[in-house]
Amino acid sequence: MTVETLSEVASHGGVQGVYRHASAATGTDMVFSLFMPPEVERGEPLPMLWYLSGLTCSHANVTEKGEYRAACAKAGMIFVAPDTSPRGPDVPDDPDGLWDLGQGAGFYLDATEAPWDRHFNMATYVIEELPALVAEHFPADLSRQGICGHSMGGHGALTLALKHPGRFRSVSAFAPIVAPMQVPWGRKALRHYLGAEEDSWRTYDSVALIEDGARLDQLLVDIGEGDPFLDKELRPQLLEAACRTAGMDLTLRRHPGYDHSYYFISTFMADHVRWHGERLSR
Amino acid sequence: MTVETLSEVASHGGVQGVYRHASAATGTDMVFSLFMPPEVERGEPLPMLWYLSGLTCSHANVTEKGEYRAACAKAGMIFVAPDTSPRGPDVPDDPDGLWDLGQGAGFYLDATEAPWDRHFNMATYVIEELPALVAEHFPADLSRQGICGHSMGGHGALTLALKHPGRFRSVSAFAPIVAPMQVPWGRKALRHYLGAEEDSWRTYDSVALIEDGARLDQLLVDIGEGDPFLDKELRPQLLEAACRTAGMDLTLRRHPGYDHSYYFISTFMADHVRWHGERLSR
Repeated sequence: MTVETLSEVASHGGVQGVYRHASAATGTDMVFSLFMPPEVERGEPLPMLWYLSGLTCSHANVTEKGEYRAACAKAGMIFVAPDTSPRGPDVPDDPDGLWDLGQGAGFYLDATEAPWDRHFNMATYVIEELPALVAEHFPADLSRQGICGHSMGGHGALTLALKHPGRFRSVSAFAPIVAPMQVPWGRKALRHYLGAEEDSWRTYDSVALIEDGARLDQLLVDIGEGDPFLDKELRPQLLEAACRTAGMDLTLRRHPGYDHSYYFISTFMADHVRWHGERLSR
Repeated sequence: MTVETLSEVASHGGVQGVYRHASAATGTDMVFSLFMPPEVERGEPLPMLWYLSGLTCSHANVTEKGEYRAACAKAGMIFVAPDTSPRGPDVPDDPDGLWDLGQGAGFYLDATEAPWDRHFNMATYVIEELPALVAEHFPADLSRQGICGHSMGGHGALTLALKHPGRFRSVSAFAPIVAPMQVPWGRKALRHYLGAEEDSWRTYDSVALIEDGARLDQLLVDIGEGDPFLDKELRPQLLEAACRTAGMDLTLRRHPGYDHSYYFISTFMADHVRWHGERLSR
């Protein structure tokens, strides 16, 4: 698998890169960003933190606004930000021109319904194709992967970690969608991508996965109490209840005044990087 | 003077705001961003750091990509980022449609030549109007101001500090234009804004100001050795020579591999905030 370097820039002692490659999983070119910390000079494989972005975002939002590089440089950690969906003129998009379905809104699943099933295979992309590609081209230690994400990307991080036990040593999220089956964004996406049969939705719903027996060792979640999507789309109390019932170790922090933006994410990013760093360095 | 709040968002324990006001100096509406650190809750006036941006930028670039909030929250410091010029359909712009003159390229001077002299009064705006406005609406301690800037904004920070002794207790710059009279960007701008008589340019040229006797107590400058504008537009060796001759205390740090972007600025931003914080807290 070949990778094209779109840019590589020195930052915080390391290198912030943006790369493109032809993806077999999505049938399109895909772009991702990767920060390589200065620790790379030691010549040993490094732990890696995945960051899955939210609706409408590409790799660029967190790369520009996420404020993760100082913390990753300190922790000696690679930081990878994939795109949120396949893109291009041949890739289907929301029929109503909205931003919560289609391009920029892949929901980190493998679609089964036409016209989405041809390109929208973000679960396979993030779990299989991209890690193999990264490990081929960068000194990443695949036995030390952590994953985090924001909003739809928080949903992605939680569901992928719950579905692949042992893959990720550490899991966290900023303002995640935790129960897509129970909220408007999620119900729309799951109906389009997976079809009308709701039983098939349960493997892409964190709360349902926990109810059905999936577990994480630990989970860190930050939420802004001023988040305009809190009550309608995020509903962290559903995750809280599921974890309580399951006896799962959830650290849920509610921050008064914070919203859904990168001003919120960047505030707590260094905390998350440290959390992952502690769990990936052992 | 009234100020309109365009946005206020919680971040790093404080509030990142964006504000608009009618400017007498420029005869236009002007937008600036201001970060208020959590320290404001103590109820005392706070030190303030000005950040002047480079060509093509508005307040938004550093606000999104500058990574200053964590450091300013820690230092208890207000951070203010003005725009780089007046803007609007009635404001003149580069006749050739280029980006190094006119809107986004005010060079922090008061223009004397038509058609620029009506609106392009950024020196008066930054030195007189905006500090008064900020002090009226925010708990800023005007006896504790620092100033920094990037590229054209580094030129602005240095020249304004050199021309107003005692105004700024601390001065620093990222990749500044230090001798606009001797480089293409600067010569074009000074000729348009100030006219053909080069003697009038000397009060807007850091090296000439130092040669003519202006002094700063101390100066911190960071430069990326991979900066594509280094040899043609920035020429830090001219500042180095002028400071050496004048016996001025310059700390000039050259960083291998770094370029001219916010990936460079953000890497050293926390250093600069600390530098200013040490000098503004006393």
